Amino acid sequence: MLLPVSTWQDIESWLKTSRTILIPIGSMEQHGPNGFVGTDALCPEIIAHHAEAQAPDEVLVGPTFSVGCAQHHLGFPGTITLRPTTMIAAMTDWTESLMRHGFERIYWLNGHGGNIATIQAAFSEIHSKRSFDPNGADNRPGLELKLRNWWDFSPVMKLCNQLYPVGHGSHATASEVSVTYFGYPDRARPEVEMSPKLAPNGKIGDAVQYRRDFPDGRIGSDPTQSNAEDGQKIVEAAAAAVLDEVKRFAA
Amino acid sequence: MLLPVSTWQDIESWLKTSRTILIPIGSMEQHGPNGFVGTDALCPEIIAHHAEAQAPDEVLVGPTFSVGCAQHHLGFPGTITLRPTTMIAAMTDWTESLMRHGFERIYWLNGHGGNIATIQAAFSEIHSKRSFDPNGADNRPGLELKLRNWWDFSPVMKLCNQLYPVGHGSHATASEVSVTYFGYPDRARPEVEMSPKLAPNGKIGDAVQYRRDFPDGRIGSDPTQSNAEDGQKIVEAAAAAVLDEVKRFAA
Amino acid sequence: MLLPVSTWQDIESWLKTSRTILIPIGSMEQHGPNGFVGTDALCPEIIAHHAEAQAPDEVLVGPTFSVGCAQHHLGFPGTITLRPTTMIAAMTDWTESLMRHGFERIYWLNGHGGNIATIQAAFSEIHSKRSFDPNGADNRPGLELKLRNWWDFSPVMKLCNQLYPVGHGSHATASEVSVTYFGYPDRARPEVEMSPKLAPNGKIGDAVQYRRDFPDGRIGSDPTQSNAEDGQKIVEAAAAAVLDEVKRFAA
Amino acid sequence: MLLPVSTWQDIESWLKTSRTILIPIGSMEQHGPNGFVGTDALCPEIIAHHAEAQAPDEVLVGPTFSVGCAQHHLGFPGTITLRPTTMIAAMTDWTESLMRHGFERIYWLNGHGGNIATIQAAFSEIHSKRSFDPNGADNRPGLELKLRNWWDFSPVMKLCNQLYPVGHGSHATASEVSVTYFGYPDRARPEVEMSPKLAPNGKIGDAVQYRRDFPDGRIGSDPTQSNAEDGQKIVEAAAAAVLDEVKRFAA
Amino acid sequence: MLLPVSTWQDIESWLKTSRTILIPIGSMEQHGPNGFVGTDALCPEIIAHHAEAQAPDEVLVGPTFSVGCAQHHLGFPGTITLRPTTMIAAMTDWTESLMRHGFERIYWLNGHGGNIATIQAAFSEIHSKRSFDPNGADNRPGLELKLRNWWDFSPVMKLCNQLYPVGHGSHATASEVSVTYFGYPDRARPEVEMSPKLAPNGKIGDAVQYRRDFPDGRIGSDPTQSNAEDGQKIVEAAAAAVLDEVKRFAA
Amino acid sequence: MLLPVSTWQDIESWLKTSRTILIPIGSMEQHGPNGFVGTDALCPEIIAHHAEAQAPDEVLVGPTFSVGCAQHHLGFPGTITLRPTTMIAAMTDWTESLMRHGFERIYWLNGHGGNIATIQAAFSEIHSKRSFDPNGADNRPGLELKLRNWWDFSPVMKLCNQLYPVGHGSHATASEVSVTYFGYPDRARPEVEMSPKLAPNGKIGDAVQYRRDFPDGRIGSDPTQSNAEDGQKIVEAAAAAVLDEVKRFAA
Repeated sequence: MLLPVSTWQDIESWLKTSRTILIPIGSMEQHGPNGFVGTDALCPEIIAHHAEAQAPDEVLVGPTFSVGCAQHHLGFPGTITLRPTTMIAAMTDWTESLMRHGFERIYWLNGHGGNIATIQAAFSEIHSKRSFDPNGADNRPGLELKLRNWWDFSPVMKLCNQLYPVGHGSHATASEVSVTYFGYPDRARPEVEMSPKLAPNGKIGDAVQYRRDFPDGRIGSDPTQSNAEDGQKIVEAAAAAVLDEVKRFAA
Repeated sequence: MLLPVSTWQDIESWLKTSRTILIPIGSMEQHGPNGFVGTDALCPEIIAHHAEAQAPDEVLVGPTFSVGCAQHHLGFPGTITLRPTTMIAAMTDWTESLMRHGFERIYWLNGHGGNIATIQAAFSEIHSKRSFDPNGADNRPGLELKLRNWWDFSPVMKLCNQLYPVGHGSHATASEVSVTYFGYPDRARPEVEMSPKLAPNGKIGDAVQYRRDFPDGRIGSDPTQSNAEDGQKIVEAAAAAVLDEVKRFAA
Repeated sequence: MLLPVSTWQDIESWLKTSRTILIPIGSMEQHGPNGFVGTDALCPEIIAHHAEAQAPDEVLVGPTFSVGCAQHHLGFPGTITLRPTTMIAAMTDWTESLMRHGFERIYWLNGHGGNIATIQAAFSEIHSKRSFDPNGADNRPGLELKLRNWWDFSPVMKLCNQLYPVGHGSHATASEVSVTYFGYPDRARPEVEMSPKLAPNGKIGDAVQYRRDFPDGRIGSDPTQSNAEDGQKIVEAAAAAVLDEVKRFAA
Repeated sequence: MLLPVSTWQDIESWLKTSRTILIPIGSMEQHGPNGFVGTDALCPEIIAHHAEAQAPDEVLVGPTFSVGCAQHHLGFPGTITLRPTTMIAAMTDWTESLMRHGFERIYWLNGHGGNIATIQAAFSEIHSKRSFDPNGADNRPGLELKLRNWWDFSPVMKLCNQLYPVGHGSHATASEVSVTYFGYPDRARPEVEMSPKLAPNGKIGDAVQYRRDFPDGRIGSDPTQSNAEDGQKIVEAAAAAVLDEVKRFAA
Repeated sequence: MLLPVSTWQDIESWLKTSRTILIPIGSMEQHGPNGFVGTDALCPEIIAHHAEAQAPDEVLVGPTFSVGCAQHHLGFPGTITLRPTTMIAAMTDWTESLMRHGFERIYWLNGHGGNIATIQAAFSEIHSKRSFDPNGADNRPGLELKLRNWWDFSPVMKLCNQLYPVGHGSHATASEVSVTYFGYPDRARPEVEMSPKLAPNGKIGDAVQYRRDFPDGRIGSDPTQSNAEDGQKIVEAAAAAVLDEVKRFAA
Repeated sequence: MLLPVSTWQDIESWLKTSRTILIPIGSMEQHGPNGFVGTDALCPEIIAHHAEAQAPDEVLVGPTFSVGCAQHHLGFPGTITLRPTTMIAAMTDWTESLMRHGFERIYWLNGHGGNIATIQAAFSEIHSKRSFDPNGADNRPGLELKLRNWWDFSPVMKLCNQLYPVGHGSHATASEVSVTYFGYPDRARPEVEMSPKLAPNGKIGDAVQYRRDFPDGRIGSDPTQSNAEDGQKIVEAAAAAVLDEVKRFAA
């Protein structure tokens, strides 16, 4: 079920048999010369919606948390970021809203490496409320919060390595660009050329340093290899893995 | 241009001729027995994307700010809200990200009455930085922030009144449900019946009071009248008005 | 009863028969060449105290919340503002203090248009606590928060329009200056001249833009028409309307 | 000059010869059986206004910061408090507003012992901005922030001890009640009796403990001795001392 | 018992007979030419550990809260400070952690005058939670928070005055430097000379002003007199006084 | 050099040749039946001080940030935690203090897995200031922030695996307990027995869940193997690796 296009009665029914929801979470940040600014939000959304289309009764997909932690990309136009403390506050509000309805397991399907730390810090902040409570704490059920990066499933990693033995990279990767081309085939950019073909590697600090060290935005990747057909394979592999894991998480 | 599916170079080019961006802003909250939880986010998004499709060179549409102020709807499953202070922090981060790139005019196309106060408070918070600055303030260009509710254009209001002379209502309105049915025709719910046909009116406080006074979530409306054809008319009228206003705003 | 000059036992007695309190809320900001910096705080205070003097047993008036949202006036010396998030925090603390004593209905009599959004956002923030609470929420009584601008009563509006058919304006209005001249007749400034007689109209952003567009601080008004006699009429009309509405609100 | 009943041009003129302003700061909290809830805000306000009336060209008095730190009095109806962090935020906003206009010396005339710590913490918070700044800091002038409790002047202390050799006390003191009776003679409560005549002494924690240990709200005092004549003497002594100190502070 | 080098079972046992803990709290800030940057944290730590060594069963010493409020010292390299609001948040988290385990009395042994206001503001912030609570508040036991500056015990003050009749001073005092030399004898700096021998006195504002008025960091002191032998005497006197007071506090 | 026992002039001298500082960062939380509550703060402190003792001119060690993110351990007495947002605020204040003096590279030597996410989120929050700045940003030098867990160096890992092929575990590990026994040999607990010998493994949520799933606090470890001799080996290996890395970081 897709929460944003369901009614509240649909969600009420869902809660009779499940306490679990999946939230795609990403970022709005530059992804090099042929990747979309929304790549990191679009990837988990495409995968989650694909999973839901396969098995609408087995997963409830919430709205996409589409702007995350991307301060280091602010040197590139189009990037939008939350400060980590803002993101923690927003994730707390989302979570407490869902807890109000009886959700007890929230599965965050993440599309952005730069979000990982702040998502985990947010989990800790959210758990703090129950952890600090000297009495009543046991009266309400505990909450399970799970973070999963879509590329971390081993069949997905294997597939990506196989598709892009060279130039998969770590930002504006060949695989994530392919996923978005599968989702938005009309907007693919097969014509874009890049030089150097393989982007440099290095460490990440603030936005001034990032733009200086990674002039076109990519890190270690050659996404000119990306295409919608690859994207489809990746999405199918990831969606299957997500469905499987969500079912076990919900159990 | 749609920012999430554009590259950073596209946005860099855009900024050579324009300093303006449109952000759809909505809410994730119950909309009665046949309206989607995402209605208030979907409506401005559908309208903005429709406008962009008409004139891609004349408007840049950013990602949708899809979760807003909906504490009073928390009695209904599926509703997700930000506390107003969280929303102010998030809108500030979005705005300062855009200012970093050189945007000077941000047009927020709003889909939720309950957001209006907090959006305006956020504008005031954002302007405070320049207003408090005793020197340097004039060194950077001023920022223009504009809020527009999609239903406020007079041709749109006139059309809605004409389509739904009775039962347009003020929450889960006949018109907004139609807009989402136009956007998501496969998910329309023509079969849903409501009783009473016309929902009650009243004032809004917290979630306990709201659910008590408005048991199925609607206020004053009869959205069984909603359909995709009406939605199309409304979207076309609103998109035209938006395009026209954004052009004048950007000038 | 006036809370600041009452004892705690007086308030304890009041609470035996009423759960309602009125809080005047305003701003400390420039009001053009002949208006006081405190105008927006003084007007609701003068009206509320006048109402209380008529019927001390029917309304309890709290301290005046005298500094509000006025960032756009910071270009003019004397203006003092709270950031909106500070104002939300302060209003929350005031409200939770009053709830601690058993107050359940708080009527905010407002004197400043620029406060409206933030007051409503504060209401939403305050209600959030009960709205988010998954259990215990119903254990404590709900809270009613009401915002009323003193100029919004129809007899008051009618009177203002009649007194100042031309040049009432929207900031440093003829009517609000008259109200303060009634309250502080010795400080009236009949001698001040203004040019142009009618101040310009326009939109409001930050403090730099405001001072540029409205050089003497007024918007659309000619407050050289103001005088204490008019002020008295307005205060009497507004005080009567307030008393009437508070009684209904408390019921 | 009194800021709230002055125009912005008056303040602009003031700033040509002085960079100093006095802000009365107090609290809204129970003051025993015959003291007003507003006592701690009214005392510094009465004294400051009295000083200003003596020498209007020598002191500029701002609006009264009337609600302070009074969490320990919340067990008594009518008490309104800010949390310390809210008070720090509000004092910061007031101060930065005044700095915007060119004020460089702010003299806080305090009426509440329970405010002292938070006022000093706020000074530290405010100074932090300039202290942390690695460069530009010297470009803007430094700020002087001064806290003065009205009862701390030695002539005032001497007078109070002389008027009330027994039962001056430390909360709901004989002297502060007298000051408010001088300010609001019609509201004096000569008829109120108290038992025990002398309130107990003890330490202060939270509101539950306070109400348990100090059942009528007083600490160590016998304010049945209070009267407007004493109040006048105290106000005159304090106003003279304030005027004198402010002049030296401004130099 | 020293908490950081105890096991959780040790603390569990402690709580069976006592609800009290001592927390040394200090600052990390310049202390003139021969004082350590950590002086204000080291002094209460040395004294508390000395007391514990005398009577390990009578006092539980927690970790040292070693960075406090020192914005005014930021002009001197090595100084590290918290903003007051950060310090309030951190002290709140420490206290709520301890309350979670059943501690009801927290004794803060302070080493820095500049911390006093913020510590007291933090107490007020912490107490606010129970004070605001309209019902349940009485269900959990009250909390006692006590602040004690190590130099405030009268035998300690007497000793310091006797040891340093001239040049004890108020920052980088002869006594505190001696205490740290006793704690870290190998790091003593007998060779350092100062000019002028007696540092100037004056008032404290921000870091720019402080460095200008107190060029080597001292205020009013001549710590060339400091030595480990004096330190030992002071530590013994203070430790005895602390032990005695903690026992009475715990009772 | 050890900052807390150095003078400000020592730090001033240091800054003439280096812009780098090392901060040990840990946690105050239960470490099973024979581990100290302070283990995670003590380990990086012991290692850093050991490194400094080897080469005092090559590394400057700041005060230990000793309380971190440990909400999940609050079910065990003695645990003290910061909420993640408090920790971010405190780390920001420490960092901005150090930047004020000219430090440009901060090396955080971490002793607690549960800190990693929040430390990285704090880095992102700190970098945000420069990243958001549309102009002046380049005027000040960039900041490098590095996180290193002491156990992550490959010689250290290899040694730990070799010393404890079975039962190293992931919380209250055999190695960290050994490190603290080396640092505090008198407080070692060779007599403590545990059952089961090997603690269970599992996932970590809030404090209620943690205590339920890990009844004596350990995860996967058998720290009865710990001893000071092993600790010495580990400390020597880690200190050498730290020194080496810090030198390269500073270059």
